Amino acid sequence: MARVSQEHLDARRRQILGGAARCFARNGFHGTSMQDVLKEVGLSAGAVYRYFAGKDELIAAIADEAFEYIRRAFSEAAGISPPPTPDVLLGRVVRGVFTGQVYGLERRACAALIVQVWAESMRNEPLARTLGDGYTGMRAGWAELVKAYRAAGVLRADVAADDVARTMIATAQGFIAQEALFGGVEPEALENGLRGLMSIEPPVAG
Amino acid sequence: MARVSQEHLDARRRQILGGAARCFARNGFHGTSMQDVLKEVGLSAGAVYRYFAGKDELIAAIADEAFEYIRRAFSEAAGISPPPTPDVLLGRVVRGVFTGQVYGLERRACAALIVQVWAESMRNEPLARTLGDGYTGMRAGWAELVKAYRAAGVLRADVAADDVARTMIATAQGFIAQEALFGGVEPEALENGLRGLMSIEPPVAG
Repeated sequence: MARVSQEHLDARRRQILGGAARCFARNGFHGTSMQDVLKEVGLSAGAVYRYFAGKDELIAAIADEAFEYIRRAFSEAAGISPPPTPDVLLGRVVRGVFTGQVYGLERRACAALIVQVWAESMRNEPLARTLGDGYTGMRAGWAELVKAYRAAGVLRADVAADDVARTMIATAQGFIAQEALFGGVEPEALENGLRGLMSIEPPVAG
Repeated sequence: MARVSQEHLDARRRQILGGAARCFARNGFHGTSMQDVLKEVGLSAGAVYRYFAGKDELIAAIADEAFEYIRRAFSEAAGISPPPTPDVLLGRVVRGVFTGQVYGLERRACAALIVQVWAESMRNEPLARTLGDGYTGMRAGWAELVKAYRAAGVLRADVAADDVARTMIATAQGFIAQEALFGGVEPEALENGLRGLMSIEPPVAG
């Protein structure tokens, strides 16, 4: 039997995950069978089960990779000094998600997949843990960034970094939900909207 | 046969929708059968089918009512002059959704139900239309509010009202997603986070 290179194994793994992502985006997690995935990727059951025991493992691996992408986009941005303002940063992250960075899915399919994963995680403990870990990491990363805003003097000091982090993450999640539900959501709308919010005078504390 | 009052019919309708909402929040739309709903509300099939032909009608009615609640909370706030800033307003809307205003569901169940409805709408045309109509109405309402901010001089003039409206709606959606996924989300975090964002100096245009 020929020795199989690591590159080949990785490429095969990505091929399977890409096909599964397209199936889940199209028909939802419950509307997709392993048979559908095999058909989509054009591989035998033996070839696929060598990598993934079933749908649960597929969806967990997809979610992991999406988080990895967001984490990377984010830590790159956070490494710039001074860090880009939230409008620039969130626009970049959402644009990345929407332009085929995740398994080459087109924008609305990718957003739909993410919402499917959210819904599925509510009745799937291992997937809930994957999302929980990813979110905790994301929040910590964004809170670091908020501290960098503070250090640069662009953010008032009396607001908890974690609250700002959660709110920034929420805008991206909301845009993903809107794209999944209605389509036609442009990352520019988020950039402009955030700029608008940032221009509103906050009420005086106390 | 005794004449049945409109009040009685309305109360019965709400009883059925409340039971269905609890079932959907607990087990998802696909994991709930009409039998489950009958059992939850303690009524006969005849009594329930008199009001709703099936699960699709139940979920559409639930979504309609949630939008109605948000619209009301919103138009009340928008009627105040000058209108409350986004942190106050969005905190109020999210707090209302989280404190049993929608079918008496506790916070996380209510958030979970909303995410279930999002996921289901992707494969359910009538439900997608219900959400689309609700969202269009909401966007128009929030854009009016943004114009009121502008008129009051608290928002820069060069940002599209619809973009700010979308972004404000996105923060509420994102908080609902976070509560559904992870729990423990306090409306105060959104209020503080928005205040933090509002305190960041926006980049100079051009």
